[in-house]
Amino acid sequence: MKLYVVGIGPGEAAQLTPKAAAALTHCQVVAGYSLYLSQIEPLLEGKERIATGMTGEVERCSLAIQAALSGKTVAVVSGGDPGVYGMAGLVLELAASHPTLTVEVIPGVTAATAAAAVLGAPLGHDFVVVSLSDRLTSRGSIEQRLRLAAQGDFIICIYNPASHTRPDTLQWACDILLKELVDTTPCGIVRQVGREGESSTILTLRQLRDTAVDMSTTVIIGSRSTKVLGNRLVTPRGYRDI
Amino acid sequence: MKLYVVGIGPGEAAQLTPKAAAALTHCQVVAGYSLYLSQIEPLLEGKERIATGMTGEVERCSLAIQAALSGKTVAVVSGGDPGVYGMAGLVLELAASHPTLTVEVIPGVTAATAAAAVLGAPLGHDFVVVSLSDRLTSRGSIEQRLRLAAQGDFIICIYNPASHTRPDTLQWACDILLKELVDTTPCGIVRQVGREGESSTILTLRQLRDTAVDMSTTVIIGSRSTKVLGNRLVTPRGYRDI
Repeated sequence: MKLYVVGIGPGEAAQLTPKAAAALTHCQVVAGYSLYLSQIEPLLEGKERIATGMTGEVERCSLAIQAALSGKTVAVVSGGDPGVYGMAGLVLELAASHPTLTVEVIPGVTAATAAAAVLGAPLGHDFVVVSLSDRLTSRGSIEQRLRLAAQGDFIICIYNPASHTRPDTLQWACDILLKELVDTTPCGIVRQVGREGESSTILTLRQLRDTAVDMSTTVIIGSRSTKVLGNRLVTPRGYRDI
Repeated sequence: MKLYVVGIGPGEAAQLTPKAAAALTHCQVVAGYSLYLSQIEPLLEGKERIATGMTGEVERCSLAIQAALSGKTVAVVSGGDPGVYGMAGLVLELAASHPTLTVEVIPGVTAATAAAAVLGAPLGHDFVVVSLSDRLTSRGSIEQRLRLAAQGDFIICIYNPASHTRPDTLQWACDILLKELVDTTPCGIVRQVGREGESSTILTLRQLRDTAVDMSTTVIIGSRSTKVLGNRLVTPRGYRDI
């Protein structure tokens, strides 16, 4: 019995891998947050669907596992890469008590690298990926990670910078970072990466602090070597002969 | 005038996005490390090639830019994602003095998430990506980043864990991490991810220290919440109701 966890990439069909498309074509049942299912609508014709709201993850994955155990081929769909704040971990946790079930995780282009490509090449050296969602992680733990990342001169990529219930989390995070980094640290934001209406802005950390973002925004905060070249954000790898 | 920097994903054609394939089809000239060009051979028939050895990056990208400035459509090819230790940053640095040239970066599935998918879902929470290559970065800086990443309870994904000239770098890195993390910290390695001969192993940090790896190995070191479930490595996101 087989269950796929499929990363669909940032959104546009051109960034969905053939391997992910093949799994979606092959399966009889798809489960996923309705926004992600709507992004791959042309691939889902005639398939049974398990769609619940954003916070229904455990229920949705449990239903997907039940469908797979009943003998159907099932795909759980995640935006971006399913292993980066996606459904892969939860599915594997829930599937652990069903040894007859084979789970295959199919990776996708994650928002960090999709957003970086729009901005230029800000992730060109060692970086961290941090979610600001405090639904499943304490604020203290997020604060410590941001502080250590800045102290280590990592580039910082932020997922889930805001939501309806926490509109000010990015401001809070910037205030932590401004204790370690200079005001002029180059940063970039990408809204709706890989989707219709995609837009990007390059700005300083001080400006970022006072910028409104939503849950569909990916934020990148530069390291000490990140720079703005023309209209692109770049962290050089460090080739000495240029 | 147009130059693409194209991420071809981990290796197999099924993980190359349609957007990357379209850019490769469209271009007249391709530039890249010969290993990466050989992975996409079927897409390159009849195209002019700029291929140099692994350390010829600056020369190769300069030649690609010259070809683009002469009016040809050029693609610089990177394994995985071109923004993660790939060619995007270098191309943008070299292209900065040629404002007539438009550079488009096309993201790909990077080794971190491709390797994570093979292992299960080890990157399920905040993580860092660190290269152990000391060709362009000091050992002191790498050591500090590893130490802070472990202190911050990040999952750690290591690129370039070894090379011919530094066969023992992973051992050195593990000794730094063993001062912060327990011996039994769950880790995973994936060799040749997405290529023929792909294999993976789940092991403890202590075992990892004494394991031989090469430059085509991706290493993931768990956080304090990473666990082994059956034969999979998983870092739970933290859903409290399962």
